[in-house]
Amino acid sequence: MSRPTMPVADLAHLGHVEVLTDRYDESLDFFTRVYGLKLSGEEGGSAYLRAWDDYEFHSMKLTAADTTGVGHIAYRVSSPEALERRVAAIEASGYVTHGWTDGDLGHGRAFRFEDPFGHVFEIYWDTVRYEAPPDDASALKNLSSRYHAQGVSPRRIDHVNVLGGDVTAFRDWVDACLGSRVTEYIQLDNGRIGGCWFSCNNKTYDLVCSEERGGGAGRLHHVTYATDTREDILRAADIYLENGVHIETGPHKHAIQGSFFLYAWEPAGNRIELANAGARLILAPDWEPVVWTEADRKKGQAWGLKTIETFHTHGTPPVKKD
Amino acid sequence: MSRPTMPVADLAHLGHVEVLTDRYDESLDFFTRVYGLKLSGEEGGSAYLRAWDDYEFHSMKLTAADTTGVGHIAYRVSSPEALERRVAAIEASGYVTHGWTDGDLGHGRAFRFEDPFGHVFEIYWDTVRYEAPPDDASALKNLSSRYHAQGVSPRRIDHVNVLGGDVTAFRDWVDACLGSRVTEYIQLDNGRIGGCWFSCNNKTYDLVCSEERGGGAGRLHHVTYATDTREDILRAADIYLENGVHIETGPHKHAIQGSFFLYAWEPAGNRIELANAGARLILAPDWEPVVWTEADRKKGQAWGLKTIETFHTHGTPPVKKD
Amino acid sequence: MSRPTMPVADLAHLGHVEVLTDRYDESLDFFTRVYGLKLSGEEGGSAYLRAWDDYEFHSMKLTAADTTGVGHIAYRVSSPEALERRVAAIEASGYVTHGWTDGDLGHGRAFRFEDPFGHVFEIYWDTVRYEAPPDDASALKNLSSRYHAQGVSPRRIDHVNVLGGDVTAFRDWVDACLGSRVTEYIQLDNGRIGGCWFSCNNKTYDLVCSEERGGGAGRLHHVTYATDTREDILRAADIYLENGVHIETGPHKHAIQGSFFLYAWEPAGNRIELANAGARLILAPDWEPVVWTEADRKKGQAWGLKTIETFHTHGTPPVKKD
Amino acid sequence: MSRPTMPVADLAHLGHVEVLTDRYDESLDFFTRVYGLKLSGEEGGSAYLRAWDDYEFHSMKLTAADTTGVGHIAYRVSSPEALERRVAAIEASGYVTHGWTDGDLGHGRAFRFEDPFGHVFEIYWDTVRYEAPPDDASALKNLSSRYHAQGVSPRRIDHVNVLGGDVTAFRDWVDACLGSRVTEYIQLDNGRIGGCWFSCNNKTYDLVCSEERGGGAGRLHHVTYATDTREDILRAADIYLENGVHIETGPHKHAIQGSFFLYAWEPAGNRIELANAGARLILAPDWEPVVWTEADRKKGQAWGLKTIETFHTHGTPPVKKD
Repeated sequence: MSRPTMPVADLAHLGHVEVLTDRYDESLDFFTRVYGLKLSGEEGGSAYLRAWDDYEFHSMKLTAADTTGVGHIAYRVSSPEALERRVAAIEASGYVTHGWTDGDLGHGRAFRFEDPFGHVFEIYWDTVRYEAPPDDASALKNLSSRYHAQGVSPRRIDHVNVLGGDVTAFRDWVDACLGSRVTEYIQLDNGRIGGCWFSCNNKTYDLVCSEERGGGAGRLHHVTYATDTREDILRAADIYLENGVHIETGPHKHAIQGSFFLYAWEPAGNRIELANAGARLILAPDWEPVVWTEADRKKGQAWGLKTIETFHTHGTPPVKKD
Repeated sequence: MSRPTMPVADLAHLGHVEVLTDRYDESLDFFTRVYGLKLSGEEGGSAYLRAWDDYEFHSMKLTAADTTGVGHIAYRVSSPEALERRVAAIEASGYVTHGWTDGDLGHGRAFRFEDPFGHVFEIYWDTVRYEAPPDDASALKNLSSRYHAQGVSPRRIDHVNVLGGDVTAFRDWVDACLGSRVTEYIQLDNGRIGGCWFSCNNKTYDLVCSEERGGGAGRLHHVTYATDTREDILRAADIYLENGVHIETGPHKHAIQGSFFLYAWEPAGNRIELANAGARLILAPDWEPVVWTEADRKKGQAWGLKTIETFHTHGTPPVKKD
Repeated sequence: MSRPTMPVADLAHLGHVEVLTDRYDESLDFFTRVYGLKLSGEEGGSAYLRAWDDYEFHSMKLTAADTTGVGHIAYRVSSPEALERRVAAIEASGYVTHGWTDGDLGHGRAFRFEDPFGHVFEIYWDTVRYEAPPDDASALKNLSSRYHAQGVSPRRIDHVNVLGGDVTAFRDWVDACLGSRVTEYIQLDNGRIGGCWFSCNNKTYDLVCSEERGGGAGRLHHVTYATDTREDILRAADIYLENGVHIETGPHKHAIQGSFFLYAWEPAGNRIELANAGARLILAPDWEPVVWTEADRKKGQAWGLKTIETFHTHGTPPVKKD
Repeated sequence: MSRPTMPVADLAHLGHVEVLTDRYDESLDFFTRVYGLKLSGEEGGSAYLRAWDDYEFHSMKLTAADTTGVGHIAYRVSSPEALERRVAAIEASGYVTHGWTDGDLGHGRAFRFEDPFGHVFEIYWDTVRYEAPPDDASALKNLSSRYHAQGVSPRRIDHVNVLGGDVTAFRDWVDACLGSRVTEYIQLDNGRIGGCWFSCNNKTYDLVCSEERGGGAGRLHHVTYATDTREDILRAADIYLENGVHIETGPHKHAIQGSFFLYAWEPAGNRIELANAGARLILAPDWEPVVWTEADRKKGQAWGLKTIETFHTHGTPPVKKD
């Protein structure tokens, strides 16, 4: 699984994730009041949300639905030319494509396509930058909007983790369609890949695929926003506790990728993480993926916390038991 | 001063900085015992130092000299082809070049050239990755070496700040020779640029040029390493205090770039910073530089701390007063 | 200024401080929305406020007035017998007394008396414990109320600092009337005491008197609440910045008492501090006061920050300039 | 289990704990290099250790033995008169006493006695204050010695937790012999007390007795030192990880007492905690003990972490299985 030196990165960064909820009002209350995202607008049954330093109109589209999970995952590309290159590559790859959409409140036209497990991705160049009105402008001109200190208030979107029946197939798809680098992965004793972490820029990862073990398809494992400090995450745990939010596991430190984390379930059941990577970045252009074996994984998280059972079974939407 | 969309980044990241000292033993003691870098090797009057998670053999070359300041500044490029492209661009630019060197303990051949104020830069592809011996290997396989918790122990090199007589000229030189983006700058009322921050990747900056106001030439303002947390920096202040290190200013938060900082002078007088940027990155491929006016600057640092006088006058080497 | 071994502590702890404001609405907005105290009740032109883990009905009484500064300072005693002992001692001391009051919303009868500079103090035993209604009860039964995460939200009241024309006289008064220990003080070269820190329990201090240098009488220097972490204070600085609150100085670390601090002025001009002492307590029953000389003070705060001018001149109410 | 208002506190604070080790050299290396205590002296097979801001000569006596666990637990009293009062009360109580000892390197004569399970306690007034030699003196004159930043380097001793077959009997013994307050306890459904937390001053606790469920007698559950910040504890987890120290559980936040914690086993198997209580103190003179039921305990720690099995079974010395 060695990789060539970093290719021209056509993808610039993860732009936004559409999260589906069958408890729209409760989920919106969680994401704004407790988690601390800001509402940029609502339209057509969706709320457009962003963290206070996300520069775009939104980084989460929360959509009322009769199910949960992920609606789509969007990456912004590096240039108009990069968009053309990527679309050409995707179309040539033979994977399922949905073609162009006109975009929505948060960005211009976008090209949609599917990973092997039915998760919908899109890429776009034209975006809507968030223009803070005076009462939402920061005192510091290099911030996208005011640090409002509401609830947890993370700084920006960080990554999304999907579930897939065959992580190797997902990796091949990323290679063909996204062109992102693999930064770390789990090599199971049975020869399969248990999980794989990808990045299209200097972040340690912005996309993860974990092996689906619950029989679902196209499911979401979690969406994550980044905080500036680990203390923000300890404080978040108290905020969750006082607001009756289900804390699944954490705060603790991941062995893989080394980020400090906290997992909770928003009211509709979607798993939402907070993470802090410290000053860790992938700066080496010839970074070799770090390989974790099952023996490594048996040590638990960095400081020994055992991974709890629901982490391997809970995804959204839940799998119906007949 | 608007910039095109992000070009193909030929430079991958700041590799290392050579710091000159006329108190070699004291400086080496500071950088290893107090600041917490690790010694990879010594040769020819130079110590090769690295932070515990720098992946290369060294990120600082500390060289015994009869003066202080910066010996050279090195960037690693993104690929062998990027090296060729950059060298061709530099040679075509008409700026002073020194040509190829064979490298040293820490990397292979490198191409050297000068900025308009005599600071020597070099770019290289072939590097020496740090291979941790068993007693320096981390318990976590994604770290370059063991977190040794000696002194401050920052995670990685972050940036270098040089002084130049004409920051606009420096910016033009960066544009021609490095190809880095401008992320923020100070626009003085007199039409000059007071300082300019550059980045060749998603970090908010890795290179700064501030206006030289002390009559020196080719001087260093400071070198900075990044810590994982702000608490590391508060703790560093206590470590400096107990070790008799001159704290110049901080801990506080920069208005420009928003990083939490602490400035100290190592025993030979070179200014050494610690910084933490939180989760802030420049992810937008079409980032517009943030412009700070003199009126903005009069507000002081983010939380109101006034910039102290020596910050504008102290550089290394000191300017001789006749 | 040596002290005997710890006397029976008749005073249990600082109970509350009455702060006067000539901008009641703005001050109340600051203390609740920005600083993060909770409103227990309003009556007779006063708001009764408490931090989320203060166990009493209030720790601050904010009173609308045509001036600013401190209305009164209240200590809870250790027992009914301690109250009798203290009142007897105060009455025997010859200092000015006001006699008994019936108390107010927050406590029962109290005995009032004056320090040599006209600051009114009171002591009481019967108190009103805060009984959290269900929507303000914490998920943790050992907390006085819910951690609401509004604004800064410090945990509890910490100390009050008054200004006095003669700190030695104040110390003698404390000795006679309060019976608190001196934990640290400033010995000026001119033989006067520049400032003196007192504690009636294991906290490093709960009361400070600094020398009045502005010609005022009975003035307040500041009131302080304690946060659990230094990070809470760094975060507070951002909250102040985004809410247009005047940050006077900090965040930084005091040399005297070693607490991490941040000073701001609430809308009416009263100086309000946030402080964190870490794990530092005065546990030694025979603690010898730490003496700071002018030479010590010239080193500035712990990490070298110079004490800013207004810190020596600004008190409330302001002194009228005729 | 209600308590009267705070009695005159004869005990001032926990002074030191004697820890037995059958791996003396390894334990000493752990406590000095990794945990970050300082060695005041060695004599008679014991090392006298203290945290950098403990004011006495030692707060831990580490003694080479053929077993592990606790040698004795020492409290300093508030005055010579308090010592007399306490000894008289203990002698009148009918519990086992050992009588006077001459003290050791760290303090003067002490009176020894036993709790119902054979743990040896002692109380003393005459102490040996630590006088820092120049190279160990702090730059801040209110600190007992230099913050040396070696390993974890907690600030001061915090508490000790013993195991007892009948916690109610232990509580009665504390009432008779120590006179400390109960601040929190666990009320089991079977009518027994599962654990009880005591304090003789404003700290939330300095002594704990948990129900012995492993068939041992006179065993130690753990000894704890206090850090200034939660970040110190997160950093400690990394230090433990890199030094191969067994992390048992944490970092996490206790529901009971609310402290942030990390448990590890030193090389001989004694459980050693790090804890941070934030700004929480017991200031109310009429504090009512907080009662935790089994139903409360089933919620796990504050943020939901389940208490791991070894926490209920591991004590030192281990119980021999025949």
